[in-house]
Amino acid sequence: MRIRLTVEYDGTAYAGWQRQKNGYSVQQALEEAFFKASGEHAAITGAGRTDAGVHALAQVAHLETQCTIPPDKISYAMNTFLPPDIRVKRSERANDDFHARFNSCGKTYRYTICNEPHPSAIYRNLSCHICGSLDIEAMRAAAACLIGEHDFAAFCAAGSEVKDTVRTVYTLAITAAEPFLRIDITGSGFLYHMVRIIAGTLIDVGLKRIPPERMKEIMLGKDRKAASATAPAQGLTLVKVFYESLA
Amino acid sequence: MRIRLTVEYDGTAYAGWQRQKNGYSVQQALEEAFFKASGEHAAITGAGRTDAGVHALAQVAHLETQCTIPPDKISYAMNTFLPPDIRVKRSERANDDFHARFNSCGKTYRYTICNEPHPSAIYRNLSCHICGSLDIEAMRAAAACLIGEHDFAAFCAAGSEVKDTVRTVYTLAITAAEPFLRIDITGSGFLYHMVRIIAGTLIDVGLKRIPPERMKEIMLGKDRKAASATAPAQGLTLVKVFYESLA
Repeated sequence: MRIRLTVEYDGTAYAGWQRQKNGYSVQQALEEAFFKASGEHAAITGAGRTDAGVHALAQVAHLETQCTIPPDKISYAMNTFLPPDIRVKRSERANDDFHARFNSCGKTYRYTICNEPHPSAIYRNLSCHICGSLDIEAMRAAAACLIGEHDFAAFCAAGSEVKDTVRTVYTLAITAAEPFLRIDITGSGFLYHMVRIIAGTLIDVGLKRIPPERMKEIMLGKDRKAASATAPAQGLTLVKVFYESLA
Repeated sequence: MRIRLTVEYDGTAYAGWQRQKNGYSVQQALEEAFFKASGEHAAITGAGRTDAGVHALAQVAHLETQCTIPPDKISYAMNTFLPPDIRVKRSERANDDFHARFNSCGKTYRYTICNEPHPSAIYRNLSCHICGSLDIEAMRAAAACLIGEHDFAAFCAAGSEVKDTVRTVYTLAITAAEPFLRIDITGSGFLYHMVRIIAGTLIDVGLKRIPPERMKEIMLGKDRKAASATAPAQGLTLVKVFYESLA
């Protein structure tokens, strides 16, 4: 039986989503909890492999099981064994061919900036601190050119082995919720570090280090070195995974 | 010179605001940071003595100093020595007779409830989890009778030595921001555990354990035992301290 999970996590303490030799990952924590709950060793596949320190409000994952726990109760069974910074918010039966990653039509990420002289104490692990005042209108002007289908090679981490760097950004909204600034970006898919490099470049626009009209040139140039530094992981949250076409 | 501080903290790791023998308090952390920054041992007096696990977005405090750090730079100097879950957001010179606690005309507290089947992972330390569905209209109906000047003895922790239990609640708003429910309460002052006992009683109304019209009887009865259990500390945040009359 195929099970679909919706998972929320605070990524602060984890080495990212994906299981690895050095460091404890969200995937490993989930697989261990499922084993403790069911007695089965099941691989749990996520829609997106979030980096160390990145959070998720609603990561989607799937697993295959023969266990007798009713599908909607698997969340409760797993949460009994999970640390409090990971919660399975929902578990349900899915079609036998459901694949959390390959069936995904898009995702929404949020990048949160704390734009005040001092960083936030309460949201220190959920936001990136920028003390200089950000020009939100300049950031919006720069962001506009990213919407649509483009080659986002300039915003892909160096060393990534992806060949096709064309993606579609459906929406990109920048919202002020004082003292926070939120960049909400929905796209067909994202290259490695793409949201954080876009966020880093938009922050430089907001700080007037880069003029807004330069954004389009950076994108068209397809050169990672022209874009800004990757913004810190803790500001990023995977908000939603879509399984219906957004086009 | 009298200095006024505005302080944000995540209370999760602290034994509350007030210095004490067993456990590390926010006050102690601030006094130690001020000593490291200035070389002076100054007592730092807060507007409200928040309990262990309670947070503050803008606690106000004062201290007396002869140090030569410019008043607005004291925040930066202290933050260098503070742990990241405490931040001095603002420091400024105040009148020589400014007293953070005695001059306060009122405070706003927020109580945050996560109303979903499973608790929040990301906001686990910033919200109280209630899995049963809450009837927000019933809660609002019950809350209405608390607004105004009343004897809140029924909502004061047993053992409190306060004699005068009359306080004024100026506003009490219950807002849904899914999956969270927020109780924002502004009053002239609050008795020991008053906001958490009110929150606990409103939660019982929301869960239909108490009819809304019973709230007024509970208040008029002035008997702590008639109100509900004190809601957990982690849901509570001191949002604002007022120094201008709210009446």
